[in-house]
Amino acid sequence: MAVYTEVSDEDLDAFVAGYDIGRVLSCKGIAEGVENSNYLLHTESGNFILTLYEKRVDPNDLPFFLGLMDHLAARGLGCPLPVHARSGATLGTLAGRPAAIVTFLEGQWVRRPTARHCGLLGEALAKMHLAGRDFGLRRPNALSMPSWRPLWQRSAARADEVSAGLGADIEAELALLERDWPKKDDLPFGVIHADLFPDNVFFLHDELSGLIDFYFACDDALAYDVAVCLNSWCFEQDLSFNLTKGRAFLAAYQAVRPLEPAEVEALPLLARGSALRFLLTRLYDWLNVPPGALVKPKDPLEYHRKLRFHRAIADASGYGLER
Amino acid sequence: MAVYTEVSDEDLDAFVAGYDIGRVLSCKGIAEGVENSNYLLHTESGNFILTLYEKRVDPNDLPFFLGLMDHLAARGLGCPLPVHARSGATLGTLAGRPAAIVTFLEGQWVRRPTARHCGLLGEALAKMHLAGRDFGLRRPNALSMPSWRPLWQRSAARADEVSAGLGADIEAELALLERDWPKKDDLPFGVIHADLFPDNVFFLHDELSGLIDFYFACDDALAYDVAVCLNSWCFEQDLSFNLTKGRAFLAAYQAVRPLEPAEVEALPLLARGSALRFLLTRLYDWLNVPPGALVKPKDPLEYHRKLRFHRAIADASGYGLER
Repeated sequence: MAVYTEVSDEDLDAFVAGYDIGRVLSCKGIAEGVENSNYLLHTESGNFILTLYEKRVDPNDLPFFLGLMDHLAARGLGCPLPVHARSGATLGTLAGRPAAIVTFLEGQWVRRPTARHCGLLGEALAKMHLAGRDFGLRRPNALSMPSWRPLWQRSAARADEVSAGLGADIEAELALLERDWPKKDDLPFGVIHADLFPDNVFFLHDELSGLIDFYFACDDALAYDVAVCLNSWCFEQDLSFNLTKGRAFLAAYQAVRPLEPAEVEALPLLARGSALRFLLTRLYDWLNVPPGALVKPKDPLEYHRKLRFHRAIADASGYGLER
Repeated sequence: MAVYTEVSDEDLDAFVAGYDIGRVLSCKGIAEGVENSNYLLHTESGNFILTLYEKRVDPNDLPFFLGLMDHLAARGLGCPLPVHARSGATLGTLAGRPAAIVTFLEGQWVRRPTARHCGLLGEALAKMHLAGRDFGLRRPNALSMPSWRPLWQRSAARADEVSAGLGADIEAELALLERDWPKKDDLPFGVIHADLFPDNVFFLHDELSGLIDFYFACDDALAYDVAVCLNSWCFEQDLSFNLTKGRAFLAAYQAVRPLEPAEVEALPLLARGSALRFLLTRLYDWLNVPPGALVKPKDPLEYHRKLRFHRAIADASGYGLER
């Protein structure tokens, strides 16, 4: 839930006048997304999402993100389509911030995904991976393995405040992942979403209507995206792994894009890395809540529990992967 | 900015199925309103606002609030119209809370009201006061003068933490207001909005499109509503009083409903009372921020400054009132 930037009516009217979408009828901050300010913009031609990019987003990355949405939408993938201003640009400036208007994607994210939702997710993720193959821009993953140690060093001294022994455990895990992490040529690479949590996937009338929030998208191992989804979709509230959901997700993914043997073998390690990545960012946010913050930090220990699950399984069959 | 209650898709679909507004296409929490959870609900027949009433609202008051909106809208006043379910009811239950769907009011609130906006406000407020005259339900003002001392007693011990000497000043002000506050028969009574701050008044294409958030509405002196608006619309950011705005507001109000001599005379005292009421509620919220709160409390001292302005003026001509 986040609206960080206040926009004056005059500035908004002037900004929207640069697009062929009619005049502004209303504009309300929406309580979703934590990185940017999002508004539901209602104009004479319908509903749109107006996003103002806040400080955590590098403006140099915006052409990649907006270009990717354009590219994926053109290939039939459900996602918000950046609206082009009369100038042709999809990126403008509003209230001193980079800003874009995208089409409104109908649907809602599901609070308690079922195995059926996980299957629809697997199919959509694989289609996204295929549709991204001929996208021309590149963006390295700013939160890939080499970034984890510097991130960890900013929390290490205080990790045991959150849970006794957490620091030593993360240290050992990080050393192992640094040693064993796959090289770029070991696995198929391509455009990944990198943050495909349930709140970034919309369903309408029980069908998947699209994916949103491409602001972590980057080039990385495609199977890493699969690992992120296993972490964020297939565990229950009590943090037990639901094998039925894992099976539905992986089978639907493979029906569109079969995993290669190297990806299958790497999956538990990628899942450990993905769990550690969310553990580290959440740990940092947990220890560094700014005074007066409007956003409640997420529990880092959730991902420590998930990490321990991944360590305990023998191979990808532990996720329900059928060969 | 507030969304307190999570609603499952199944519960939402079932709730909306009781209305003739088509199926749910999307539903997003909006970052406005601090008392209730508000969602922008998009269905096959358009945009609506779904409100879940949280604990600070007494469910017994809801028929008054919803009935009042129905009544005012029927008399041509711009305000959200409660949508009737097929059962005829405007009030239902969702996620264990009282809930209602109202029509979507186009427009936006203005961050920096001009004198023109203040004039449009004055006209709309007077029209609301006239339109409310034949409304059949009654609701005493739960935040009127007799409530201020009990409210004050919950903050008194800690008031000087906020500003040295604040406690003694409030104590003296409260004693004076308790002595001089107008009796019910001294002034014209009727339905007042009681919270008509700029964020509760929408403008569209520079005309006033309507009033929202009737959840403090009650029976009280009509001129008390005028005093609330003087406090919330006619001061500048630096807390100086803008006489041009006061004049525009009062002249437009009087063009529709001329103030009676007793109201004119009482106005500075009513403005002091209104300033104290917001000072006391903000002071309490300031001193009692719950841990992990998502809502940032508003500065109580803003209303202390305004209170001091009202004390210093000789009579209502200090607000720009022309006789």
